[in-house]
Amino acid sequence: MNLVTLGTIALDTIETPFGKAENVLGGSATYFSLAARFFSDCGVISVIGRDFPGEYIEFLKSKKIDLSGLEEVDGKTFRWEGYYEYDMNQAHTLKTELNVLETFSPKIPEKYKNCEFLFLANTDPEIQLKVLNEIKPKYSLCDTMNFWIIHKKKDVEKIFKKVNAVVINEGEARQFCETPNLIKAGRDLLKLGVEKVIIKKGEHGALFFSKDTFFSAPAYPLETIVDPTGAGDSFAGGTVGHLAKHKVFDDSSIKKSIVCGSIVASYVVEDFSANRIKKLNPEDIVNRYKKFREIVAFDHNL
Amino acid sequence: MNLVTLGTIALDTIETPFGKAENVLGGSATYFSLAARFFSDCGVISVIGRDFPGEYIEFLKSKKIDLSGLEEVDGKTFRWEGYYEYDMNQAHTLKTELNVLETFSPKIPEKYKNCEFLFLANTDPEIQLKVLNEIKPKYSLCDTMNFWIIHKKKDVEKIFKKVNAVVINEGEARQFCETPNLIKAGRDLLKLGVEKVIIKKGEHGALFFSKDTFFSAPAYPLETIVDPTGAGDSFAGGTVGHLAKHKVFDDSSIKKSIVCGSIVASYVVEDFSANRIKKLNPEDIVNRYKKFREIVAFDHNL
Repeated sequence: MNLVTLGTIALDTIETPFGKAENVLGGSATYFSLAARFFSDCGVISVIGRDFPGEYIEFLKSKKIDLSGLEEVDGKTFRWEGYYEYDMNQAHTLKTELNVLETFSPKIPEKYKNCEFLFLANTDPEIQLKVLNEIKPKYSLCDTMNFWIIHKKKDVEKIFKKVNAVVINEGEARQFCETPNLIKAGRDLLKLGVEKVIIKKGEHGALFFSKDTFFSAPAYPLETIVDPTGAGDSFAGGTVGHLAKHKVFDDSSIKKSIVCGSIVASYVVEDFSANRIKKLNPEDIVNRYKKFREIVAFDHNL
Repeated sequence: MNLVTLGTIALDTIETPFGKAENVLGGSATYFSLAARFFSDCGVISVIGRDFPGEYIEFLKSKKIDLSGLEEVDGKTFRWEGYYEYDMNQAHTLKTELNVLETFSPKIPEKYKNCEFLFLANTDPEIQLKVLNEIKPKYSLCDTMNFWIIHKKKDVEKIFKKVNAVVINEGEARQFCETPNLIKAGRDLLKLGVEKVIIKKGEHGALFFSKDTFFSAPAYPLETIVDPTGAGDSFAGGTVGHLAKHKVFDDSSIKKSIVCGSIVASYVVEDFSANRIKKLNPEDIVNRYKKFREIVAFDHNL
């Protein structure tokens, strides 16, 4: 396997100023793999309950996502319910039902072991560590969230130091490093022993830090964001998928891959759930990649 | 005159997590002209009271800033007192004493008339309009602030449509256009009839909109911001100063000038008041300009 992700497959109920979607396909592994598959094969380690609609399974399979690491168990699928107000930067959670996630113990198919790339989406850092140790990928990346930083910071720190790159959003970076300054946060993470750091800033783009480089990518300019759910995970999917395609992990390749990730995410948020990404073509990605180059270009002679 | 600005000269008292500065040189015209003078001559239209320290006048003169539009009148100089907490993005005002600004009626030296560039820093839009009509510059740009958007929105709209470019911060853009989305705000301003729009985003950089282009510039990465006061005005000063130097106003030149503005602002915030900018050399600007090119560079072949 070239690329594997550990994450959630969820049923989301979401309301935004542009409408409402009930019990739709969601979850970090869903968005990650749907974005990554434009560039690489992608295996999913996750769990669903008996209530999970067969059509969603068929849909994921139709997109050539490898589900041999997806377990179906007794109980209900993980559900998230939330809404966004006019300011789409902030998700408001109404309900989180962990359901089958509560007792989730990942079972890893043999063919996922020693994969090239592993992305550990946000989950309990102890589970992330266990999966990392079992899979032994060539390159690994991980995300986390505020809940784990508050309750298991030592474990979060442990996984951060073990992976090759940390991909977190600006709020988590500020919280983990206890500083409002994102540049300081990124550099503090490097000092802690993290190899490479990618900070996701939503409408403001993304930052990338390594010992040799600093890179700032804008967000693709969108006038209308219908549903921001999954933007961060599809950003990661596009980024890691593109790295996995070329089997590279140098700073220059990571910059280019971050732009790919931003572009895929910019499409995802144009509709609810996977409605937009399922219609996306590789040419759409190429088109916005060209636009991206123009957006940041300025005359090099002062 | 090549470049003229209408703005305030103030005595600021500022506290940040890095220290306190009392009755120090501040104001929009001060920061604007100190930044612009790296690229162009700059005349100032402003007012001070009898209490204004002679050493500050001598300092501005020593930087070759033209003060023939600066009037000294009976009364006290405009004073602002505020503080920044740990999150340096937000200024908290403790006290605003308008003093001599309350009755300010700009007197415009003959030599300022028909100047090439005019920058109208934040002030009453009726005064901005009066100065614009009297000076009749080749190119004009203006700023505003929340107070005028609330109390004189029609006048703000009038000046926005008359100038060649509007330079405002993200909060003002969102407020004026009544949308949280900055891309929509920028485009709405163009639709309203504004020729070019520059939105300042502080730590997230700046956006530029015209009918033919969209440009996104990151902020120069700084781990420590000692005092953000004057960042927006020195950004404008660097930007307009650079345009004035080359007597250009095309989109490509504006992009380059925005990067110049960001760089000058990145130095200003490294110390209180004008402490850092007074020691700044043109080579410092060139050095960070080169860095800026690296920060946004990525491989153009997907």
